[in-house]
Amino acid sequence: MNYRMILNILGWVLKFEAAAMLLPFVCSLIYMETAALSFVICILLCFLCGFFLARIKPKSKIMYSKDGFTAVALSWIVISIFGALPFIISGSMSNFADALFETVSGFTTTGASILSDVESFPKGVVFWRSFTHWIGGMGVVVFLVAVLPLSGGNNLYLLKAESPGPSVSKLVPKVRATAKILYSIYSVMTLIEIVILLIGGMDIFEAITISFGTAGTGGFAVRNSSMADYSSFIQNTVTIFMILFGVNFSLYYLVLVRKFKEVLRSEEFRTYILIIIVSTTLICINSYHLFDGPGSAVKHSAFQVASIMTTTGYATDDFNRWPVFSKTILVILMLIGACAGSTGGGIKVSRIIIALKTVAKELILTAHPKSTRKITMDKRIVEHETIRSINVFIMAYAVIFVASTLIISIDNFDFTTNFTAVAATINNIGPGLNAVGPTGNFGGFSNISKIVLTFDMLIGRLEIFPILMLFSPYTWRK
Amino acid sequence: MNYRMILNILGWVLKFEAAAMLLPFVCSLIYMETAALSFVICILLCFLCGFFLARIKPKSKIMYSKDGFTAVALSWIVISIFGALPFIISGSMSNFADALFETVSGFTTTGASILSDVESFPKGVVFWRSFTHWIGGMGVVVFLVAVLPLSGGNNLYLLKAESPGPSVSKLVPKVRATAKILYSIYSVMTLIEIVILLIGGMDIFEAITISFGTAGTGGFAVRNSSMADYSSFIQNTVTIFMILFGVNFSLYYLVLVRKFKEVLRSEEFRTYILIIIVSTTLICINSYHLFDGPGSAVKHSAFQVASIMTTTGYATDDFNRWPVFSKTILVILMLIGACAGSTGGGIKVSRIIIALKTVAKELILTAHPKSTRKITMDKRIVEHETIRSINVFIMAYAVIFVASTLIISIDNFDFTTNFTAVAATINNIGPGLNAVGPTGNFGGFSNISKIVLTFDMLIGRLEIFPILMLFSPYTWRK
Repeated sequence: MNYRMILNILGWVLKFEAAAMLLPFVCSLIYMETAALSFVICILLCFLCGFFLARIKPKSKIMYSKDGFTAVALSWIVISIFGALPFIISGSMSNFADALFETVSGFTTTGASILSDVESFPKGVVFWRSFTHWIGGMGVVVFLVAVLPLSGGNNLYLLKAESPGPSVSKLVPKVRATAKILYSIYSVMTLIEIVILLIGGMDIFEAITISFGTAGTGGFAVRNSSMADYSSFIQNTVTIFMILFGVNFSLYYLVLVRKFKEVLRSEEFRTYILIIIVSTTLICINSYHLFDGPGSAVKHSAFQVASIMTTTGYATDDFNRWPVFSKTILVILMLIGACAGSTGGGIKVSRIIIALKTVAKELILTAHPKSTRKITMDKRIVEHETIRSINVFIMAYAVIFVASTLIISIDNFDFTTNFTAVAATINNIGPGLNAVGPTGNFGGFSNISKIVLTFDMLIGRLEIFPILMLFSPYTWRK
Repeated sequence: MNYRMILNILGWVLKFEAAAMLLPFVCSLIYMETAALSFVICILLCFLCGFFLARIKPKSKIMYSKDGFTAVALSWIVISIFGALPFIISGSMSNFADALFETVSGFTTTGASILSDVESFPKGVVFWRSFTHWIGGMGVVVFLVAVLPLSGGNNLYLLKAESPGPSVSKLVPKVRATAKILYSIYSVMTLIEIVILLIGGMDIFEAITISFGTAGTGGFAVRNSSMADYSSFIQNTVTIFMILFGVNFSLYYLVLVRKFKEVLRSEEFRTYILIIIVSTTLICINSYHLFDGPGSAVKHSAFQVASIMTTTGYATDDFNRWPVFSKTILVILMLIGACAGSTGGGIKVSRIIIALKTVAKELILTAHPKSTRKITMDKRIVEHETIRSINVFIMAYAVIFVASTLIISIDNFDFTTNFTAVAATINNIGPGLNAVGPTGNFGGFSNISKIVLTFDMLIGRLEIFPILMLFSPYTWRK
């Protein structure tokens, strides 16, 4: 293991975090809050620790797979621990497990909260909470790869560990250039959303924080009622942007280089849109009696489908009161998740497509044992290696899901609450059903359950293996 | 497709069913019930249809994979449809969807019931209901393979389609001899249980029917209170036999040929026993306050763990009232299921072991990309083909699970009821939680849901692919 390299990266991550905290600090200053002082303390802490760690120069610039995975996993843990400090130091929260849960929920773009009254918080702290979504959405390490000459070696491992989806698509041959393009698209789209929300009459603070939550597919709201009190224009705008941020970002690059046909040919994109349309229609019909006419039904259904499938987690309505069929659709969408290479979580549409295709292939193979049909995606043959990794991913996912549900069941909440609490955290969604539904929160769980769910959020965001590897003896063995 | 061969097999299956119905007919005669007459009608119907179908002689004796799978799937559907007739003709049930559900539940050894009052039924009908468990446990087609020179070709496909587990282990080189050995072990063990239950003071009718339910890991009880009213001796006897029938039968063959060391070396067997011990201990501790002292706690916990894990489904206590942690353990045991090559259902312990090993291997491979470690089971390398088929199995399982849960949720039962109803049927267990818990039944579902759950039982018993292939266009294409 290249320990010096990893420590060096952690140093840069902390320096980056110090810089990131300047924004909520400015926000606190504008609103003349005492929280501004806590941000000064946090910024100094991050910067000092980062400064000394970054001074550790790696002896070798070679980075192996396990170095990359470990560096990313530790980066996320370190940034979360330091990111929790503003909540504690500002006095907004007293329990560190709570603050850590909230911060991890932010960075992993989950949006699950242990708070019941966010409106009582200082604006700066709320800003920081939403800003963690934006940072976590595209990835901390991806950002560093974009701006720093981090290692002379292979940065692809870093990108691989942090980017969602079964395989990393380098848009351009250089990893660093790829990271830059991704961050540019991400920033511009966020800016456009902010502008449209301002046009829709939102105040600047809400427009920025809600856009952070949408862009990262996070879901932390700034009002206790989540998104229920906003105008239809704003709600529909957010619906559209949630869907947009759930799309594989490489498609936007294809749009930029004017390869429109390739975009429309993308099986994952087409399936993603199809699932949104079908789910919205089914929920509309099934829950129609709960809404005020067709307009309201379509608006709320589409919003909730987009919110859950992209794993954002905003709510315009308490879907806990919807019929079980509609709620079951939402639970299924939780598991499917957004597209690979987007800011969304979940298993990812492309993994589901390939998994379904392996089942279809098996049916053909049993009927015609001599068939040599290969699994294809976008008319390209899917490599055996990718299929294997998807299978293993889904197995590991299932095992962690089951183990987490078992551990948190000690708190004796009902089965649906536990099942959806795990689904909502491991898929980085936010709200679940029953006690953790859109009007509830995760505050009722014991500290042990909160820690388990905190790990589930990290496991979900980094797609299992980077975090799991930290606990594997094989990683630390020569 | 070798249609003539398949029809011929179906003919033999029906003749076999006619013969099987002689037993409940005799039972009805002994108790001097009018139901005896209905059995005469059913026996004649089965025999006549079987007789004419069996006269269709196959032109070719060659059997391909898809012929074997189709023959087994259709055999199970046909035997279930004809097996439902005694319920209807005797006037015990009026809705054919109900009768079919109950019969499929019997043959697939599920034990899920739509009845609220089984004690009001004629003894002969109750006997037939339990006898279907015994027939389905080891398999209908396996029996035919044992006694008939069914096809000159490869009978292994028939065995493969009907036997549970990732790979069929032929005990002896000849398929027919293997089937004979399996059925002999099965019959002798059932007989031993009947004798012990008689010694325990059970009456002969109950001893036989309860033993059928244990041997097939079915779970249809003959009292409305399931197994709650029996003595501790009887309950503990049933616990032990449930565990015994959940073991891979090839281990009993190893015992017979005195290869004891190989039995103890079996990873699946050791894991199976370990899971039972750990689960029983955890439930004992977690639910201790609900029982009258340590003896009662161990008895009920062990009984329920054995009953659910072997997918039998008997109950000595209403586990719906247990704490959520204990219930979650039971739900996990539902999914794991018994050993491959036993009469139990579920995903099977060996599949779970191999799936976990693929995850561990992935962790090693990410840390050490040049590792050439292979996945082993009982110190033998697991073939790539087996791993692939396990992966595909679990994917298909998950897809069917999710789709079924969605469809039955239209009935608007709560999520836990729907989830465990599907788990209890696709894993061939019987009772679930909430509305389908040990004191409830499946009678409240709509006909559509009953048909979905009926298919789930068949899909679970035949391990997905035979049934799925019936609906695949590739099976019917040249």
